[in-house]
Amino acid sequence: MKLTMPKPPEHQVGGHEAGPDKAGPLVDDSGHFYKPLHLGDERGAHEVNFYTSFSSDPRVPSSIRSFFPSFGGTKLLCTSDSSDVRLPHLVLENLLHGYSSPCVMDVKIGARTWYPQASESDFEKYLKKDKESTTVPLGFRICGLQVHHESGRWKPDRNKVRKYTVTDVRQVLRRFVSKNLDATHPDCALASSVYGGSNGVLAQLLELKSWFEDQTLFHFYSASTLISYDKGGMSARVKLVDFAHAMEGEGIIDHNFLGGLCSLIKFISEILTDTTEAEVGPANNRIV
Amino acid sequence: MKLTMPKPPEHQVGGHEAGPDKAGPLVDDSGHFYKPLHLGDERGAHEVNFYTSFSSDPRVPSSIRSFFPSFGGTKLLCTSDSSDVRLPHLVLENLLHGYSSPCVMDVKIGARTWYPQASESDFEKYLKKDKESTTVPLGFRICGLQVHHESGRWKPDRNKVRKYTVTDVRQVLRRFVSKNLDATHPDCALASSVYGGSNGVLAQLLELKSWFEDQTLFHFYSASTLISYDKGGMSARVKLVDFAHAMEGEGIIDHNFLGGLCSLIKFISEILTDTTEAEVGPANNRIV
Repeated sequence: MKLTMPKPPEHQVGGHEAGPDKAGPLVDDSGHFYKPLHLGDERGAHEVNFYTSFSSDPRVPSSIRSFFPSFGGTKLLCTSDSSDVRLPHLVLENLLHGYSSPCVMDVKIGARTWYPQASESDFEKYLKKDKESTTVPLGFRICGLQVHHESGRWKPDRNKVRKYTVTDVRQVLRRFVSKNLDATHPDCALASSVYGGSNGVLAQLLELKSWFEDQTLFHFYSASTLISYDKGGMSARVKLVDFAHAMEGEGIIDHNFLGGLCSLIKFISEILTDTTEAEVGPANNRIV
Repeated sequence: MKLTMPKPPEHQVGGHEAGPDKAGPLVDDSGHFYKPLHLGDERGAHEVNFYTSFSSDPRVPSSIRSFFPSFGGTKLLCTSDSSDVRLPHLVLENLLHGYSSPCVMDVKIGARTWYPQASESDFEKYLKKDKESTTVPLGFRICGLQVHHESGRWKPDRNKVRKYTVTDVRQVLRRFVSKNLDATHPDCALASSVYGGSNGVLAQLLELKSWFEDQTLFHFYSASTLISYDKGGMSARVKLVDFAHAMEGEGIIDHNFLGGLCSLIKFISEILTDTTEAEVGPANNRIV
């Protein structure tokens, strides 16, 4: 049996991408996602610690555990075909494995991304990003997305996404579940099947919210919800990712994450309300 | 009929107190609370605007309106018996009117007290206070309190309250509903009647929370919940106060206030759980 080498993912929308001097994540055919560990600082070790401690914590309900990528330890991997340098990687579940046309959005949750132990310069850097993005006003910011349309793929450039205003976010959350390519009048044709329903995005976010109202185990600074669905037919999924700055909760709820999550929930609810009203409107007219 | 002049309140625990060169609030015998308007800056005018707009906003449900002090416009009042200078005051409801032995606690809600339009120097000042207090870690901070005991009144000094740590807050929330004066082992004897029950503090905070999950009308920076009960027998009350930095919500929920409120709710819930368990424990033992 020939095993294919892990290769860069086709559908990454957030996180650290590979660059000329920088290792990016890899995926394989068996559904693994290999995330390179930061070697220059403690973030990599910190994320390994989080996954290790989280995976074995009996206080996490199994219904909540399924919101997190499954974790398979660490592994040394070559960073490219042409290199013999083997670097440590986190072995995680590839959350888009099996999707034919994945639509995916990375939403960093919280009105503050700086963590308690951040150095003064890191604190300034994170705070500046928070104030310049929608993190401060909305309690969340979109870090990346891609949507498959019949006519192709819409994947806005990182620098464009970085500059999203509140108005942009409102519109992008609609375009994410639209079939038309009209940026100013997204049709939200998929809103009820992706955001709505008993297994839709909203229901999953509400389940997460319930846990965050109660859990005092972890605080997730700079973590994201990865929201995805497959144009090829698979149902909507909400997962949490990026735990380089996850901290112990020390008996306090993660009010920063919870507040941002509630804000995102409100936006998604409004899209569903608008869509349902729009559907009811014309239908009623037709009957009359 | 002789009308008594408004006089300084006996039971103020938070907010701006009167000083040698500073007008403080006044109360009268008819249940009014007169809050002097800041003249040096826009805060006074801002708070008048908030009360005016809030009072007449039909989108605020009446059940929520009762969490806010009733508002009777503004009035020119002499700042002291010996002065002829008349300054403008907000005419509000005295939230402790009729209490014989008021126990009261001022809790400023939110992990951030700086508001979007704050000047750079104000922003720095507020952020520093937030980081030095429990505002950042807990999403709220206690600004003042008084508790009546059989042996007298416990009203910790402002400078002491300002330095409260997370551990102090945890303990003060217990002492606030205790009959004994033991700082390290508060008995929480009044927890179930003050915090618990269908009209208790927790139930009221949960009602507020539901509104904050949905309302996008106002953002309350630096506002407080005033939690009070009367040792003389009156039931527990939760009110919102201090709207010098209330802003329009512009279609976004107040995730900052909501997150902090959820954090306070979790602390109060835990006290109730601990108290109930403690009650069940010995009772069970006695039966066995």
